[in-house]
This record gives sequence, C-alpha cells and structure tokens, in this order.
Amino acid sequence: MTPNHHLYAVILAGGSGTRFWPLSRELYPKQFLKMLTDHTLIQETASRMTPLIPAERILVVAGVQHAEAVRLQLGGAIGVPKANIFIEPVGRNTAAAIGWAAQAVLRRDPEGIMLVMPADHLIPDGAEFLRAVELAVQVAQDGRLVTFGIKPIRPETGYGYIQAERKRRLGVQGELAALGVACFVEKPDLLAAKRYLRSGRFYWNSGIFSWRADVILKEIEEHMPTLAAGLAKLRPQLGTADEARGLEEFYQSAEAISIDYGVLQKTRRAAVIPAPFQWSDIGNWRSLEDVAEKDDAGNVRIGPIVDLGSRGSIFYAEQRLVATIGLVDMVVVDTADATLVCPKSRAQDVKQVVEKLRERKAPEQLVHRTVLRPWGSYTVLEEGPGYKVKRVSVNPGGRLSLQRHSKRSEHWVVTAGTARVTCGDRVFELRVNESTMIPKETAHRLENPGHVPLDIIEVQSGDYVGEDDIVRLADDYGRVNDLNPSTKNQGA
Amino acid sequence: MTPNHHLYAVILAGGSGTRFWPLSRELYPKQFLKMLTDHTLIQETASRMTPLIPAERILVVAGVQHAEAVRLQLGGAIGVPKANIFIEPVGRNTAAAIGWAAQAVLRRDPEGIMLVMPADHLIPDGAEFLRAVELAVQVAQDGRLVTFGIKPIRPETGYGYIQAERKRRLGVQGELAALGVACFVEKPDLLAAKRYLRSGRFYWNSGIFSWRADVILKEIEEHMPTLAAGLAKLRPQLGTADEARGLEEFYQSAEAISIDYGVLQKTRRAAVIPAPFQWSDIGNWRSLEDVAEKDDAGNVRIGPIVDLGSRGSIFYAEQRLVATIGLVDMVVVDTADATLVCPKSRAQDVKQVVEKLRERKAPEQLVHRTVLRPWGSYTVLEEGPGYKVKRVSVNPGGRLSLQRHSKRSEHWVVTAGTARVTCGDRVFELRVNESTMIPKETAHRLENPGHVPLDIIEVQSGDYVGEDDIVRLADDYGRVNDLNPSTKNQGA
Repeated sequence: MTPNHHLYAVILAGGSGTRFWPLSRELYPKQFLKMLTDHTLIQETASRMTPLIPAERILVVAGVQHAEAVRLQLGGAIGVPKANIFIEPVGRNTAAAIGWAAQAVLRRDPEGIMLVMPADHLIPDGAEFLRAVELAVQVAQDGRLVTFGIKPIRPETGYGYIQAERKRRLGVQGELAALGVACFVEKPDLLAAKRYLRSGRFYWNSGIFSWRADVILKEIEEHMPTLAAGLAKLRPQLGTADEARGLEEFYQSAEAISIDYGVLQKTRRAAVIPAPFQWSDIGNWRSLEDVAEKDDAGNVRIGPIVDLGSRGSIFYAEQRLVATIGLVDMVVVDTADATLVCPKSRAQDVKQVVEKLRERKAPEQLVHRTVLRPWGSYTVLEEGPGYKVKRVSVNPGGRLSLQRHSKRSEHWVVTAGTARVTCGDRVFELRVNESTMIPKETAHRLENPGHVPLDIIEVQSGDYVGEDDIVRLADDYGRVNDLNPSTKNQGA
Repeated sequence: MTPNHHLYAVILAGGSGTRFWPLSRELYPKQFLKMLTDHTLIQETASRMTPLIPAERILVVAGVQHAEAVRLQLGGAIGVPKANIFIEPVGRNTAAAIGWAAQAVLRRDPEGIMLVMPADHLIPDGAEFLRAVELAVQVAQDGRLVTFGIKPIRPETGYGYIQAERKRRLGVQGELAALGVACFVEKPDLLAAKRYLRSGRFYWNSGIFSWRADVILKEIEEHMPTLAAGLAKLRPQLGTADEARGLEEFYQSAEAISIDYGVLQKTRRAAVIPAPFQWSDIGNWRSLEDVAEKDDAGNVRIGPIVDLGSRGSIFYAEQRLVATIGLVDMVVVDTADATLVCPKSRAQDVKQVVEKLRERKAPEQLVHRTVLRPWGSYTVLEEGPGYKVKRVSVNPGGRLSLQRHSKRSEHWVVTAGTARVTCGDRVFELRVNESTMIPKETAHRLENPGHVPLDIIEVQSGDYVGEDDIVRLADDYGRVNDLNPSTKNQGA
C-alpha cells in the first residue's frame, strides 16, 4: 500500500435509510447502526480507509440532525477531527455536498484527490477495496472521474448501471483495470436489467468515486453552471465569520441533484473500475442476504431466534425472543419497541410504514429506546403518568452536563461502578447499592470518576417528565444553550 | 330462568393451553388470560353461570401450579369460596377430576346435578347458553348424560364428534331439543370430517356436560372399575385429616383418561343438545377467527398494529408497535418479552416451540413479565448483573407479606398513591416522589393504606436477585413457609 499524501476521503453521511426501520430511526439512519459487525457502518467506512488515509484527511458531510451522532461515532478512537465534519443546514443530494467538499479539499491541497463514498455501504473485505482505490487514484491523477462498478448478480432495478468499454483500458494494476465508460443508465426496467445482466458489459454504479478536486469543480462549472455559481459565491466565505451564513444561502439555493445526474452522465472523462470486492448498499432488509451468513435452509438468523422449518427468510432480533414457524421468504425484525413482519418481496415498502408513523408522530419512527450521548447512553425502561424510569450508563471519565429541571425530581440508584454526584452545593460519591435524590430546580451533575462503566437506575418523578425540561449550565460537549430543535428533545 | 337448587357448576381448570404461547405461559395457561374481553376466560366461565348458579355452588378443579391463579381470579368480586377450589396434586385428565367432583357434590346434596365445563372456552352469548343449560338439567334429572353438540362450520379434525339420532327426542324446550346419541367418534381424518360436515347429523363434542352426580358415579362404576375403586377408597377420607394423603394416593393411581373415552363412548344414557349458542374452545391462535371481529380484508387486529395490505391474518399486539406488510393468512403475536410469527396453517405447531423453550428452561415459557399476586402485581422492567428493576402495584388495602431477603437490598420510589412501609422497627408513610431503602436481612413490608392504587419502582441490588431469596414472616394470604416449588419462584 503506497500512501498518497494528496488523497482525501469524503464520506457522505446524509442518507435517511428509512427502509431499515425498525432498526433505523429518523435520528439514527443505518449509517449510525451496527449491522453485522461490532462497529457502526460509518465507523466501518472510516476505518476501512485508515490504512491508506489518516483520520486528519477524512472529511464527512452530514445533515444537521445527525451532527452529534457523527461526532460521537467518528471522534474518539477513530479520531476524525471535529473541523473535518461538515454539517449541511439542509439536505440537497450529492452534487452540492461534493462541490462543498471539493472546495474544502482544494483549500487544503491544490493537488488534492477525493475518494467519495457513502457512509452506509457494506464492504466486507477492506484490503481488496484499498487495492482498487490505489488504481483509482492513479487514474484520477490523469484527470479522470473514476467510478467503481459492481458486477451484477441479479437483474436489479433499484440501481443505476454503467456500461463499460471493455477494450479501452485507462489504467492497469495487477489483474485490475480501469475501463472507459460508454454510458451511464438510470434505474432500468426489469427487461433491460435482465439484458444488462446477460451482456456482461454493465456494472452497478456503487456511488463510490475518485477524482481530483480541481477536476470535479471544473466539471461542475461545465455541466452545472448554477451550482458552480453558488460555489463561487461561497468560496471566499469559507473559513471566515461569514461561513455559516454563506452555507445557509448556498444550500437554500442549491438544486437537489445527484453528482451522477449532474456530471457523470454528461462528462467525457468517466472511467470505471470493475470492483474486485464484495459490496452491498444494504438498501433494505432483503439486502442482508447478500452479505450475512445463512443457515442450511437459507435463513439469515441474527439474535435469539427459535425457528421450526423456515426457509429463505431474514430474522433479526435485537434482544427479545422471536419464535418463527414455517416461514418462507419472509422478513421478521424485532427491536426493543417495535416489530416488523413482511415478505422479502415487500421489503422496500417499509418506507411507507415509516411515512405512516411519521404522520402520527410515533416515537418509534424518530428515536430508539436507547439513546447514545457523548458521555454514554440512556435507555427508557418505562414511562407512565408522572414518572419515567431510565437506565443511564456513563463511560469512564464521562460526565453529563451540569443541569437542572423545573418540573421533575430524580432518584438515582447506582447498580455498577462509582458515581460522583453534584447536587446543589454538595459533591459526593455513590457506590453500588447507594442512592440519592435530586430535588427539582436543583443544579446537579452525574459523573463517572472511575475506570469501569457507571450504571444507575434513574426514577424521574413530576408533573412533566419530557426530555425538553432541561437547562444546561455547563457541558463538556459544548451543549450549553443548545437550542437545536432536532437534538434538544433527546435530553441529558 | 328458573334456578335449580340442586345444580352445581364444575369448572375444569386443568388445561395447559401451550398453543396460545406467547400470550399463555406454563403458569398462566389461557383460562387465566383476558382474550377478547376485560375478564379472563375462567372469570367469564364462572360469571356466565351466576344468573343460574350462585358462587357457593360453583366448584373448580385445578392443578396445584395454578391454585393461586384460580383463587385470585375467582375469589373477590365473583366470590367462589376457597373451599370450592379443588386442587389436584397431579393432572389425570377429566375422568378422575369429574369423579372427585361428583363425590363432593353428592356429599353436599344427594340430588345434586352437575354442569361440567372447561374453564377456557369462549361463549359470547351467555343467555343463550343458560337456555340450553335449563333443558340439559331437565334431561339430566331423568338420568341422562347430557352433552352439548356444536354444529360444525368446517371439517375440523381436532375435535371429537357426536352423531345424533335426529328422530329420538329426549326433551324439548321451545325450539331446543335434546336428542339421542347414535355414537361418539374420536378425532376423525379429513375425509371423515368432510363427510360429517355434509351429513348434518354430526356435532362437535364441546366438552360441556350435565348429569346427576349419582348417575355419573354409577356409570364410572360400570365402565371404569379401577377409577371407581380408587374413588371408593377416597370417599371416607374426604373432609377428614386424611384428605390430602387420600387425594395423593387416589391421583397417583388414577389413570389419565378422559370422561369421553372412559364413559361417554360406552354408555347407553347419552343425550346431545344441539347448541343454540356460538362457541369456541379457542384451541390455538387460528380459533380467534371464529370469535373475534375482522376488518374488511378478513384480518383480526388486536392492539397497536400498523398494516399495509394484509389479508386473512391474525395480529395480536399486547403493547408494543407491530408493523405488517402484505401478509396473507399469517399469525403475528407480540408480547412484552416474546414474539411469534407463523402461517395460520401451522398454528397448532406452537406447542413444539413451547417444548423447545421448556427444554432450554427459557423464562418466556414459564411466566410473563407481569406477575399477578394476591395484593396486586409486579412487572420486571429490567434485570442485569447484580440488579433488577420492577414496577410494583399494590391494590387499595392490599399488603405484601412481612419478609426479608438475605442477598439483596431494595430501593423504593413511590410514583402513585401512598405507601405504608415497615422497615425493621420503623413504620412510616411515603408519598409520591418519596423514597426509602430496605437493607438486606431487614424485615420489611409494603402496604397500600389508601383508596387508590399504589405504584412504586423497586430497584433491587445485590449479588443475587432471584425471586426465591425470600423468607416470609407473616402474610395475609396464607403464604408463610410456602415451600411449594411451583409458586415460590414468583416471589413477593
């Protein structure tokens, strides 16, 4: 592996991933979930790059409602600096995000090369992927817009296709080759998809790209003059006090267009590398079949499943027991607060369920029972009239904001670790099996001074126990006076 | 309605009901659950009788593992005296239970007439049922063994059938008639069942019977001499200090045979009343179709279901959200700790799942998250290493036993009502938002002195938080030194 000091990873984390409900939620789309490994998809995406690209050259573009999740998941061990996380005030598809990122790369390195990839794709073999990236960078350096093509394994109508010019080799490394592109095809009908599958000259467009920052900006100028004008106006504001306002204006006026449609379908510089790696965009529950292990009857079984004679089905149980009998080609997904059952063939219709839930403002659409916080996490165990019960877990060294509530008291019982408690003027420690009570209107703080996780059970009691009854007086994570409506209802 | 002072209801509550898992559990088979109404099936069964038979003449035969559930559900408002609840040391099918009950009836009233019925059948129209009972009693008084026959609506292979002699009328009342019986048929094959359905002369055997106590005992003597010998030996011991030992011996030696097989198939005294009422033994989830309301697409939908275009399916959600898409003829049942998904055609195979769970000693087979107690109920909200969190609800005037635990402390926070707490030598009251801590080894008691329900959140903390760490020092419900292994693990 030859590190290239001009190479920047640009991770696009704007996906909404509604089709993975009930595992995904509006505030936690699938890039922020663990799918088949111990790390979330966005963590896997970043970690896959680090042998080739240090965290300082990994940039992330994400929506404002996911800003905290990105910081939480890519800070820490992975070490992506906060300044590398670009927050879009509003989602505008990929062209705007890539344009902004290209300018940012160019400001840091006039010879910068971008490797653009979605945060929520699954690539089991990272080394194979990096091999392809090396060839891509080499071809990108020549001024090409390099795409990664996936060999189709079924007549998929949900993807765009790339037709390769198999005789026109634009670069070679070992058995890998970058080919010329005859054309891009938008999502085809089934008949066309079957023809593409047979022909052997068509590849799925993976949405992973590599190009020089200056080249993509020139291409945007040529094919998307309106976006280019917006970017030109934004450029002098980046890195100044006007940046936030400039971004707001840029995004409000930017068209919501994909880079595929805006540039790739029109350029003459496109190249495609037939991917040597396994890939899935895991667009819905059915896609788990492509990447997860199956039992002898062709079932994917994750979690505590008791099955009698099912075939070709996908079973995912987070924690609770799920019993299945004689199911054929079905999807069953069970989470702490919601369950989904549908035939595999209807997996894409999950988004309609999510739409229904959104209309009726169901909490099961927005958040999970367990909510991750910079200091750890909390899980709502039960909520009833006048009370709420939570398990609160604080990482070693972590502490919640200094805060107070005007409508509720809190009772804390330590069940693991040691707590340092601030309550009004007093600061004291609580060990396992010790408890305290925080009266309402009293400033308080919970902290884990130890080296093992701290767990407490918190019983809230009051006329109102909503998460938005909180005033933050001091916070290690910059959340004082945090009036962002998308995060304030998550509390603590 | 003409009350007959010789009439006794005998409710057989020994069913195990494993096919209604996950709603039913080993310690709570379906007779103890609310299926479609606000009362449990056994409560519905008893209440259905009370216009005709006062609670003092309602007898119940139940297994030892369900003794407490029967007392809890039929005492109180329904008012079945404790002395009327007969506890079998071991299950031996219906003949032994009916023989014992017949002797008990005869001791109370030499002219006693029995109306025998399972605790777990559903009969939506109680008035129609009582009309048929009146005719049955009249025919029973003539020395007949009266059965209730249900007009088949499908070629069911899971029931026994009764072939009626349509010309031989043994009794008439309005448009109701009691007919002679040509023969009883055990569960037939599908071909025979289809023939029976067409013929119009066959009825499902409902398992509801009426006869004079002296008559059934004579029939047992004639057709089941071994059982009769056991009963003869038991008779002088009933009501004496030797009763428990006598019952133990009787049940150990009794054959496990149904009254249908042991007597009805052999007697010449049988009569059948074609039932004028709707009936279901709700033997498995599929049977809900016969008695529950359906939507336009033929789905039974109970609980918070979000559906897109399913047909002919049965959806039952206790509390959590269940989303279903495009299901056809499926069963989906969701409870607090377990979910079942299977085609309707496999509904009877749920018992195999239960068997699997029993083998691996899964708690989801034995009990619910919420456990009913004489004083109220408790729900386990979460259990982890070294701690357990419960919501404990105490009825007005109810109190738990005076108890102590050797391995755990308990923290109590009141969330509704008022608690009277005994902790060692102290007795004090706690109101909403007040809390206390009960150290291990300390005698304590929780009591609701008020007129509204008391709810507390209890956080248990200790090396061991199993329900069997309890010593009961005093109890309003006779549970001191309760060493019954089937109930002691339910605690409190």
